[in-house]
Amino acid sequence: MNAESDTRSRILAVARDMFHGRSYADVGIQEICEAARVQKGSFYHFFPSKRDLALAVIDDMADDWAHGFVAEAFDPSLPPVERLDYMVDAAYYWQKASADLEGRMPGCLFGNLALEMSTRDDVMRARLNAVFDKARDQFRATLDEAVARGALAAMDTEATASAMLAYLEGVILLAKTRNDPEVILRLGPAIKTLRIEMAH
Amino acid sequence: MNAESDTRSRILAVARDMFHGRSYADVGIQEICEAARVQKGSFYHFFPSKRDLALAVIDDMADDWAHGFVAEAFDPSLPPVERLDYMVDAAYYWQKASADLEGRMPGCLFGNLALEMSTRDDVMRARLNAVFDKARDQFRATLDEAVARGALAAMDTEATASAMLAYLEGVILLAKTRNDPEVILRLGPAIKTLRIEMAH
Repeated sequence: MNAESDTRSRILAVARDMFHGRSYADVGIQEICEAARVQKGSFYHFFPSKRDLALAVIDDMADDWAHGFVAEAFDPSLPPVERLDYMVDAAYYWQKASADLEGRMPGCLFGNLALEMSTRDDVMRARLNAVFDKARDQFRATLDEAVARGALAAMDTEATASAMLAYLEGVILLAKTRNDPEVILRLGPAIKTLRIEMAH
Repeated sequence: MNAESDTRSRILAVARDMFHGRSYADVGIQEICEAARVQKGSFYHFFPSKRDLALAVIDDMADDWAHGFVAEAFDPSLPPVERLDYMVDAAYYWQKASADLEGRMPGCLFGNLALEMSTRDDVMRARLNAVFDKARDQFRATLDEAVARGALAAMDTEATASAMLAYLEGVILLAKTRNDPEVILRLGPAIKTLRIEMAH
């Protein structure tokens, strides 16, 4: 990694942790520069504004997410219904690791930013929406496969996939409000009971 | 209403709309004072800090909520399972009215504040958690009644009630990210399919 991309990565990593652990509005460019040990001029070379930085953080985290725990959870070698359990477990271990380390459950960065920014920034909202759509497509492909194999009865897989994603975000929201990752373990598995029938 | 309580109510109403439509951090005391037409000295007489104001907004909205649409939705004269549908409809019409008026779906103020503030303010987190616990108790009483009447099979009503609340918050989160209240109508009714069995 050359010096330039190293500086950019350092800013991104620091900003991601700060936005995730606190909120978008609560974090200032000055403190990001200090924590990442970069000059402001260098910061603005990579990110013309805090909002450009936030968009890059969303892309960066979505990329890690897609190739990391989402890819593992939706492993095609697992039976489709087991993938849903795996996804809940992955969310639990992710939140628990953060809570053990920081003493605070940070929740889902995408959900956090979506509720903080959606009424104020349509570009950020659209970017977050695209992340959710991709996650929904993973749920949907899994449900389609389960239905095709006869493991689940026919249903509206697209709507049910959206419902499952909404539920996962809602469970993480409630767990964050209780600052207790165990809420994910207790409520999460019920994701498999959600069902939206085909419209007739 | 005397002048003093009128001033306090005006500050509360303005702050609630601003926090709900934007975020906690995005709103300043100066602009609240301007919009409510009060002097800063008067503001600080009622609310020693922005955080005290936010706690009062939470209490105020929780009170309105409990006596307004939640009380209507959980009307004991309705069959219990219908109350769940009524709750989803109430959330939809509430969000749709705001979206029609403001062009933006504001989401649930409690969910918004919970994700923005939970890692940063344990007092606000506890206050929001208490609001969620009360809502969960409404769901739970409804489920207990449905089970007692034989309208639903036995289940872990406390855990299922938490799951239903989480789902409602998650559906509102997804709808806000799409800025589309219709998402609540499409996904919401599946709340009735969520089920957590009794632990054995």
